[in-house]
Amino acid sequence: MLEELKTQVCEANRALEPSGLVKLTWGNVSGIDRSSGLWCIKPSGVDYGALTPDDMVMLDLSGKVVEGRLNPSSDTKTHLVLYREFPEIGGITHTHSPYATMFAQAGHDIPCFGTTHADHFYGTVPIVRALTPEEVAKDYEHFTGVAIVERLRELKLKPLEMPAVLQLHHAPFTFGKSAMDSLKNSIALEMCAQMALGTLTLNPDLHCESIPKHLLDKHHLRKHGPDAYYGQK
Amino acid sequence: MLEELKTQVCEANRALEPSGLVKLTWGNVSGIDRSSGLWCIKPSGVDYGALTPDDMVMLDLSGKVVEGRLNPSSDTKTHLVLYREFPEIGGITHTHSPYATMFAQAGHDIPCFGTTHADHFYGTVPIVRALTPEEVAKDYEHFTGVAIVERLRELKLKPLEMPAVLQLHHAPFTFGKSAMDSLKNSIALEMCAQMALGTLTLNPDLHCESIPKHLLDKHHLRKHGPDAYYGQK
Amino acid sequence: MLEELKTQVCEANRALEPSGLVKLTWGNVSGIDRSSGLWCIKPSGVDYGALTPDDMVMLDLSGKVVEGRLNPSSDTKTHLVLYREFPEIGGITHTHSPYATMFAQAGHDIPCFGTTHADHFYGTVPIVRALTPEEVAKDYEHFTGVAIVERLRELKLKPLEMPAVLQLHHAPFTFGKSAMDSLKNSIALEMCAQMALGTLTLNPDLHCESIPKHLLDKHHLRKHGPDAYYGQK
Amino acid sequence: MLEELKTQVCEANRALEPSGLVKLTWGNVSGIDRSSGLWCIKPSGVDYGALTPDDMVMLDLSGKVVEGRLNPSSDTKTHLVLYREFPEIGGITHTHSPYATMFAQAGHDIPCFGTTHADHFYGTVPIVRALTPEEVAKDYEHFTGVAIVERLRELKLKPLEMPAVLQLHHAPFTFGKSAMDSLKNSIALEMCAQMALGTLTLNPDLHCESIPKHLLDKHHLRKHGPDAYYGQK
Repeated sequence: MLEELKTQVCEANRALEPSGLVKLTWGNVSGIDRSSGLWCIKPSGVDYGALTPDDMVMLDLSGKVVEGRLNPSSDTKTHLVLYREFPEIGGITHTHSPYATMFAQAGHDIPCFGTTHADHFYGTVPIVRALTPEEVAKDYEHFTGVAIVERLRELKLKPLEMPAVLQLHHAPFTFGKSAMDSLKNSIALEMCAQMALGTLTLNPDLHCESIPKHLLDKHHLRKHGPDAYYGQK
Repeated sequence: MLEELKTQVCEANRALEPSGLVKLTWGNVSGIDRSSGLWCIKPSGVDYGALTPDDMVMLDLSGKVVEGRLNPSSDTKTHLVLYREFPEIGGITHTHSPYATMFAQAGHDIPCFGTTHADHFYGTVPIVRALTPEEVAKDYEHFTGVAIVERLRELKLKPLEMPAVLQLHHAPFTFGKSAMDSLKNSIALEMCAQMALGTLTLNPDLHCESIPKHLLDKHHLRKHGPDAYYGQK
Repeated sequence: MLEELKTQVCEANRALEPSGLVKLTWGNVSGIDRSSGLWCIKPSGVDYGALTPDDMVMLDLSGKVVEGRLNPSSDTKTHLVLYREFPEIGGITHTHSPYATMFAQAGHDIPCFGTTHADHFYGTVPIVRALTPEEVAKDYEHFTGVAIVERLRELKLKPLEMPAVLQLHHAPFTFGKSAMDSLKNSIALEMCAQMALGTLTLNPDLHCESIPKHLLDKHHLRKHGPDAYYGQK
Repeated sequence: MLEELKTQVCEANRALEPSGLVKLTWGNVSGIDRSSGLWCIKPSGVDYGALTPDDMVMLDLSGKVVEGRLNPSSDTKTHLVLYREFPEIGGITHTHSPYATMFAQAGHDIPCFGTTHADHFYGTVPIVRALTPEEVAKDYEHFTGVAIVERLRELKLKPLEMPAVLQLHHAPFTFGKSAMDSLKNSIALEMCAQMALGTLTLNPDLHCESIPKHLLDKHHLRKHGPDAYYGQK
C-alpha cells in the first residue's frame, strides 16, 4: 500500500540522526498521499537505524491505523490536525534539534536576520503558546496541533510560506510539500536558529526582522515565487 | 560468568566516544545483575576502541574483584556505593561530557526548561557538594558516592525519576534501569545541558524550572508513569 | 573543454559539505582559466554528492554559457563581476557558513585577533553594504558583485591580500589563486569567525585589530610575501 | 634511522585532523629520542592525510637537518628551544585548536575550574607574552620558544606538571613524555578551554582557580604523582 510514500517517509526518518537534528528517538517525520487521504508516520520509540519502509504506520485522515504492526509516534495526533487543517502540506517533521529548541524554551521567536532565513521562511518564525492544564489533560497531542493552526491563522501566515513554528517549552515543527521537503526545512531552521543566536550575541541591539523587506522578498521569491529562478526546471 | 552483562557493559562503554560524550579515557559505564549481586565495570585508563567483554572487571557488592585481568576504573568505589544504596538502579554512567560539566564546574544546577528535559529528568538536575579535605584524604571515590546518595535523599528524589546529578567542580553521573539506559540518560543530559546554556543566553531572566508543572508531569509520565504510552509494548 | 578546470571546480564544490561549510545546497565554487577567459561554476540547486565534472557550467567573460546541460548557480552574475574586475583571482567560493554568516548578519566585521587570521587575511575582514531596493529590482546578483568590488577599492585592499568579504544580511564570499585556494580561504574564514566570536565573549573590551602590526606582517608575509618560507618549494 | 620515532611522530600528526584540533595545515607534532639527541617533526605545509613516516624531517639538537627530503615545519626553531631547555619532555604539539586559541587571542589564561583540567594540568594554564618587534625581526620562531621557557620558569612551573601554554595573539603549545602524550595534552587542553568558556558564561563571577586545592592535588596526583593509581601498570 503506497510503497513509494512509505519508502520516502522511512528515508526522511532515517536522515534525522545523520543530519544532527536528533539524539536517541527524539523526532519523527510523516508524509501524506493527498489523492487517497492516507498518510504514514514513524513508529513510536524505535531506533532510526533499524527502520524499514514496512515499519511505517499508515493512517487515514480520521486517525485510524489502516496498516502497520507497530504503534505510531506518540505525536501522531498533532500531525493529524495539521494534515486536516493545512491541505497544501505534504509532509511534517518534528525534532528537538538543539538550537531551534533553545529558542522554543526561551520563548523567543526567530527573527529573519539574513538571506539564509529568507530563502526558507518568509519572516519571523513564531512561537506557539503552551497548552493549558485542561488541554493537556484532555488530549495533549491533539491540542498541540490545534495551537499551531490557531497561531499561523492569527498571524495570517500560510504554512508553505512559513513552514516552521516553535512550541513554547517544547520544540520545533516544520512542514513542506513532501516528507523530504519538511525535513529540509528542519535542517534550514536549525541552522538559522544557530546563526540567529550568534548574531544576537554579536549585536544584542539588533531589531527584530533586521533584513530589509526588499531583500526578504527577493530571496524568498527567487526560490519560491511564481517567477522563481533558483535550481533546475 | 554473566556473559550477557559483560557484553552489554562493554557495548555501552564503546558507545561513549562515538556519542560525543568523552575524549581520551574520561568516562566509564557499569551494570549490575541483581539476582547474583555481581556487577562489572570498564578497566581503568584503557582506550574504548580496544575494549572486549572479557576486559570488563567483575565485582561483588563488597567491592571485591571476582573476575578480570585488569584494574577496574578508578571510580569503582563511587559506583559501588550507588549500587548498594539504590537497589532500583541497574546501570551507571560517568562522563566529563562538555556541557553537563560546564554546569558542574559553574555550580549551576540544570533547571527543567522544556519537554526534552521532562522526558528524562523529573525536575531540576541537582548539584552535589564537593568533598571535604578529610573525605578526599580518607577515601575520595567512596565519599563521592556517599555525597550523591545524601543529596538525592535530601531532595527526596528517587534515582530513576532523577537519574542524573552534577558533582561540583567535577562532572555528571547518570543512572538507569540498565547500563545502556544509564548511557541514554547521559546522552539526554548532555543535550539538555547544551540547550539550557543556550536558553539562558537568549533569556537570562528565565526563572528556574520554567516549564509549567502540568507539562512536566505530562511529558515525564507519558514515558515513565504507570500509564506510559510512549514506545512499543 | 578545459577538463582539468572542470575537475578541480567539481572537487572543490564536493568538498563544501564535508568541510562543514554548507548545508543543503547553500554554496558554490567557481574557477577560471585566464588564458582562454573561460570559467565554470556549480549548477543551481543540485546536491553536492551527485556532482560530476560534466555537470559544471562553462561560461565566458561576457556571461554567456558556452557548455553545460544545467542552469548555472543563481549567484553566477556575482562571480562574473568579480572575475572581470579582479584579474588576479582564479577562484571564488560563496557559502553561508554559520560563524562567518553570524558576523555578516550582525553587521560586524571580523578584526584580526591573532595569527591564524593573519596567516590568511591581511587585516580586518570587511562588511560590504546591502543593496538598495533599486539595485535588487534591477539585477540583484550583478550588483552584489559591484558592491564587493566597490568596498575593496574603497578600503584600498587587494583581493589576494584580503581574499574575503562579508555581505551585510547575507554571507561571506572568498577569493583565491584557484578554485581550491578560494575554498581553503572559506575554511580559514569560518574558523577565524568562530574564534573571533569566542575571543569577544571572553574579552568584550578587545580593541579592533588587536594583533600588533609587526606580528600581522610577520605571519602574513612568511606565508604570502616575496620572501615567504612556509611550505615546500 | 629511528624508524619507531618517525612512525610515532607521523601517527600523532595524522591524528591532529580527526581529533578536531586542526583545519588545513595548522598544526605540527614532534618527538625526540633523548639517547641520540635526534628528533623529528612534520614537514611544512603538507596535508596530514598524505604523511608517511619517511616524510618526517629528522634534526639534531643544534637544529641541523640530518635526514629528510622536505622542509621542516616553519615552527621548528620553537620546538628546538623547548627540547634544549626542557630535558624532561619527549614530545611537543602545536595547534590552533579553536577554544584554546580563543583564550590565547583574548589574553585570558585558563583557570582550573574542575577535575578534568586538574587531571592534566596542575593549575592555571598561563599566557605567554607576545614577542617584541625586535624579536620578531631577528628570529621569530626561536624567540617564541624563548618566551615560553621564560614564562614557565617565572611561574616556577615544571613542563610535565604544566604541559600547556597559550601564546598571546597566537595559539597553544603542549608538551608530553612522548609525541603521542603531547597530542593527548592538546586534546585535553581544547576540551578544558571549551568547558572553561561555558563555565564563565554560566558563572561570570567565578574566581580564578575555583577548584579547591585539595581536589586539584587529589586529581592530579592520582594520575601523575608517585602514588598514582589511575590506569593499568
